[in-house]
Parts: sequence; C-alpha cells; structure tokens
Amino acid sequence: MNNEMIGKPHDRLATLLSDDMAAVGALIKERMASEHAPRIPEVTAHLVGAGGKRLRPMLTLAAARMCGYGGPYHVHLAATVGFIHTATLLHDDVVDESEQRRGRPTANLLWDNQSSVLVGDYLFARSFQLMTEPGSMRVMKILSNAAATIAEGEVLQLTAARNLATGEDIYLQVVRGKTAALFSAATEVGGVIADAPDDQIQALFDYGDALGIAFQIVDDLLDYQGQEGVIGKNVGDDFSERKLTLPVIKAVALADAEERAFWERTIEKGRQEDGDLDQALALLRKHGTLDATREDALGWAAKARTALEPLRPHEIKMMLTDLADYVVSRVS
Amino acid sequence: MNNEMIGKPHDRLATLLSDDMAAVGALIKERMASEHAPRIPEVTAHLVGAGGKRLRPMLTLAAARMCGYGGPYHVHLAATVGFIHTATLLHDDVVDESEQRRGRPTANLLWDNQSSVLVGDYLFARSFQLMTEPGSMRVMKILSNAAATIAEGEVLQLTAARNLATGEDIYLQVVRGKTAALFSAATEVGGVIADAPDDQIQALFDYGDALGIAFQIVDDLLDYQGQEGVIGKNVGDDFSERKLTLPVIKAVALADAEERAFWERTIEKGRQEDGDLDQALALLRKHGTLDATREDALGWAAKARTALEPLRPHEIKMMLTDLADYVVSRVS
Repeated sequence: MNNEMIGKPHDRLATLLSDDMAAVGALIKERMASEHAPRIPEVTAHLVGAGGKRLRPMLTLAAARMCGYGGPYHVHLAATVGFIHTATLLHDDVVDESEQRRGRPTANLLWDNQSSVLVGDYLFARSFQLMTEPGSMRVMKILSNAAATIAEGEVLQLTAARNLATGEDIYLQVVRGKTAALFSAATEVGGVIADAPDDQIQALFDYGDALGIAFQIVDDLLDYQGQEGVIGKNVGDDFSERKLTLPVIKAVALADAEERAFWERTIEKGRQEDGDLDQALALLRKHGTLDATREDALGWAAKARTALEPLRPHEIKMMLTDLADYVVSRVS
Repeated sequence: MNNEMIGKPHDRLATLLSDDMAAVGALIKERMASEHAPRIPEVTAHLVGAGGKRLRPMLTLAAARMCGYGGPYHVHLAATVGFIHTATLLHDDVVDESEQRRGRPTANLLWDNQSSVLVGDYLFARSFQLMTEPGSMRVMKILSNAAATIAEGEVLQLTAARNLATGEDIYLQVVRGKTAALFSAATEVGGVIADAPDDQIQALFDYGDALGIAFQIVDDLLDYQGQEGVIGKNVGDDFSERKLTLPVIKAVALADAEERAFWERTIEKGRQEDGDLDQALALLRKHGTLDATREDALGWAAKARTALEPLRPHEIKMMLTDLADYVVSRVS
C-alpha cells in the first residue's frame, strides 16, 4: 500500500472532500428532521452520530468529483446513500436482535423494535424523496434497484443462513445483495450524475461491487478472528446467531462426518453448548478456512483495484486504489 | 345512499375498471417475484391473496379514468400504491404484534418478524422502482412524500398512543399520516398522470384525504363496537394494545377523577385486569363518545363528497360519491 505514511485513504478522501462531506452532513441533518415526530431524529441521530465513517456517501462524492462533476446534486445522492444505509442498519439490528453496533447499544435496545422498524421506513422514504431531486431517471433506477437488491439479499440470507447446503455461490449472492449493491450503486451514480462515458460508469460499478464484497468478507472473517474492542461487536456473534458465513461454509465443505454433525447441531439445529465456539474456531483453523477466506478478500480487493484502470489518472483514483487495500488491511 | 340496490360502490367500480384491475393484479404478481429469494413472493402472496378489496389501487385507476387518461401508466401507479400499502401492513403487524388480519393469521405469525420486516422493505423498494416508470417527477414526489408521511404518522402514533395528553388534533395528525396520506396520494396521482387541471387534482387530493380519515375513524370505532366475524379482528384490540383512539380520547376529555384514574391505569400504565374492556365500553357509552365518533366519521364522509364537486359529471364521480357513504355505512 503506497501513501500509508500520510494517512489512511478514507481519511485522505474525507480531507479532500471535506466541503462536500460537510454539505452531506448538513443535508442529512435537515432531512432527518420531522415536524411531528421527534422520535425520528432522536433515533436517527443515535446512528448517524455513532462514529461511522460515511464510507458509502463518500464513495458517491469521490466518483462524481473524479469524473469532473461541478453541480450540486452529488450531495443529494450521497445523502440518499447514507439514508438507505442507516435504514438498513436499523432494520438489520431488529432482524438480528443485535444489542451492540460500533461499540454502542443498538437503537432497538435503547428504544424498541417498533421505533427501529418505523424510523427505518421513514429514512427509506426520505431517501426516495432525495433521489428524485436531481431529476435523473437513470439515477433513480439505479438507487431504487439497489434498495430492492439489498432487501432481496437480506431475505435470501434469512432463508439460507442456517442451511448447511448453502455454498459459496449463495453466500456471494447474499453479500452482493446485502452489502455490495449499495457500494456499487454509490459509485455508479457518482459517475452517472457527472455524465461520465459508459465505460467509466461500468468501471465505477465494478469497483464498488468488488470493494463491497471484500468489505463484507473481511467483516465476516473478523467475526471469528477480530479483537472485540476493535470491531465493536462480539467475536463469535455470527456463530451464536447461527449465520453461515464464508469461513464456516468452507469448513463445512471439508468436514468429515463427525465435524458435519457438529455444524448440523450448532448451526442448523441451534443447540449450542459451552465450548462450541472454541470447537468451531479449532475446525476453521484445522482446515485453514480463515486463511482461505482472507485470500478471497484479498482477491476481491485486487479486482476492485483493477476495475479502476479504465479511469483517467486522478488523485481520487489513487485514493480509491489505496482504499481497496485498506479495506482488507485489517486482516492482511 | 343512491344506487345501493345495484351493488356496493366499490364492487361497481371494480366491475367498471375490471380490465385495469386485472392489469394491476398481473403487474403486482410480476413485480413481487424474486429470482433468488422465494420467501418474498410467499409472504407477499399471503397478504395479496387475503381478500383485500384493493381499494387504494382502485382509487388511482378511478381518478385517472375519470380525468380521461388513456395511457398505460395508471396501472403502474396503482400497483405502486398497492405495494406501499402491503409493505405498511407487514410492518404494522410486526409493530403491533398482531396475530390476525382480515380474519387470517398474520405473516409475522406464519413466518417470523424478520421475514415481515425484510419482505416489507423489498416491497417498498419495488414500489419505488415502479413509481419511476411513468417518468413523471411530480408523481414521484407525491408518492415518495406519501411514504414519508405514512412512516411519520406511524412513529407519531407510537409515541402518542399511550399518552392521555394526546388530543383530537394529534389523533387527526396520526390518521392523516398513517391512513389518509396513501388515499390522497392514490387519488392525486391519478389526476396528475391524466394531466388534469390543478383544481381537479386538488379536488381529488381533498377527496382522498377526507375519505381516508373517515375510513380510519370507522375502523377505530368498529374496534369497540364491531362484530368479530365482520371486522376480521378482535373487538377491544386497540384497548388491549393500549392504543388511544378517538372514542377513548373523547371519553378522557370528559372523564371525572375516578374515570381518569381508570384510563391512566389501563392505557398509560397498561395494568389491565379482567372486566376492564367492559368498563371501558361502559364509559364510552356513558359519555356518548361512540356516537360522537360516528358523527365525526359521517362529517368526513360528507367532506369527501363535497370535495368532488369541482369535477365534471362522470359515472365514476357518482361511484366515488357513493363510496364515501359506503365507507361509513358500517357504522351509520
């Protein structure tokens, strides 16, 4: 990774785009307000203020600027992406019955599931209001398709996550939906609003897609080998929630009969006992699937870098290249 | 009510618009499909097939036809309205922890809350995809605003429903949001897609708004005086869910100290005992608030009829006038 000595790539992007990011922050604050229901900005502010890096909105701003956009609407699109992301976080925490996000109690714990569901709906609706404002049909199609793909990925996960027949192909489909769809829409609409040529827009889409997949694989890997203070959630959450992710899918594929019985009991049937997480970790290490998963993440990061090649030289292009490395640096 | 002898007004509308309604049904079926996640059409079909009259989509078709629309896109807008409505039903049943809707078990009971939340999100996203297809910015603004207003009304209800300080003004705000916003958007976009003059579009909006308010007040009244088999839910559900609705709000305003203590215990504190529902009904009858609530519903139905006056004579106009009467006929 070059340039590491002068800061993390998302920090460098945030510095370069600081005026735009401030405008996005102001627009989000303005649009999350509700005249009648103060619960809405309370819940939203809890998430928006929770130290997220606003990576996805920043991708939209970066793509638009890199493609030479000079208008005001990349800010609306970045805020749209931010609202969609926040809405999915609120609903995810209800679905997963999570109690912690980014090291803080979740909204469903601080308020209730009802508030999380309905405030999430409000933010979805707000995102659709925002996305209409630039008046671009193509942008609206991309972002509304992304919202449908995200939900589809989440539903697929719901039905596939506890089924040992779920292979790497289904895992990839889930990840493309629940995570990568918003990354790729974020970068793509940046190019579209800038009226970039189609090959550049395709390059931006491919970059966002590969970056999002790398990002999610790293997240799933850290769930088994991260340090609690660093990842802001508990090690083994996916295991205790019986969520099949790549390290386990790879281990199931290599399992002998006894190991398969272990995964059936703990993931499919959910009869978990003390010591099962240690046993799961031992099996992942035995079959080297944590390493293999890391290799996959590195491969997607490389694909993200390669995807950028059709784009002209630009300081933002360099930062996005570094960002692809950075996303996997937590596990490499 | 005229014309009652030749059928209920929504049945006559459905007959007149049967080709359009069939097209809406086909489009809904096509768009609720999911290549990857079969759970989505399963859950959606449970609601779509549950004997709903598709009143809201029909309002869009009726408004468009009445204003002389000859194009194909009223079908997309009606399907949009249908998807938004189905999505809100799925989420409402999670929020209310309901077990029955239209006399059948709810999706959250048959599957789980997770599926209801995520399939609802999918249908919201699908509705936004659909609403972009006619390519009308004005239509998109109306429908995305409606979606935000619905969620806002639901959140307001969440914070206001168990608070005895909630007066009729807040109740009206909640009802305008959670129910009337979709009725008024449904009729308004029908006029907009037909390129009707502004005063006619305003008339259609006002009609939908008043009709939706009448509809919800009747629903809330039937919760206290309906017959179980007829309304498809249990009498007293709102009371046991501690949801302040108009009959109770009016009774609280007239309560003496002892009665107020009863409402505080049962609604605010939620410490309900056997016999409390009977006691609540006795208080509503004592203060005549069921009658007063019915009068309010009839007043909104009259407003809906009056709102239609600026529109040209048309057989659909007559049916919509009758529909306003019909909506309150269950309690008049």
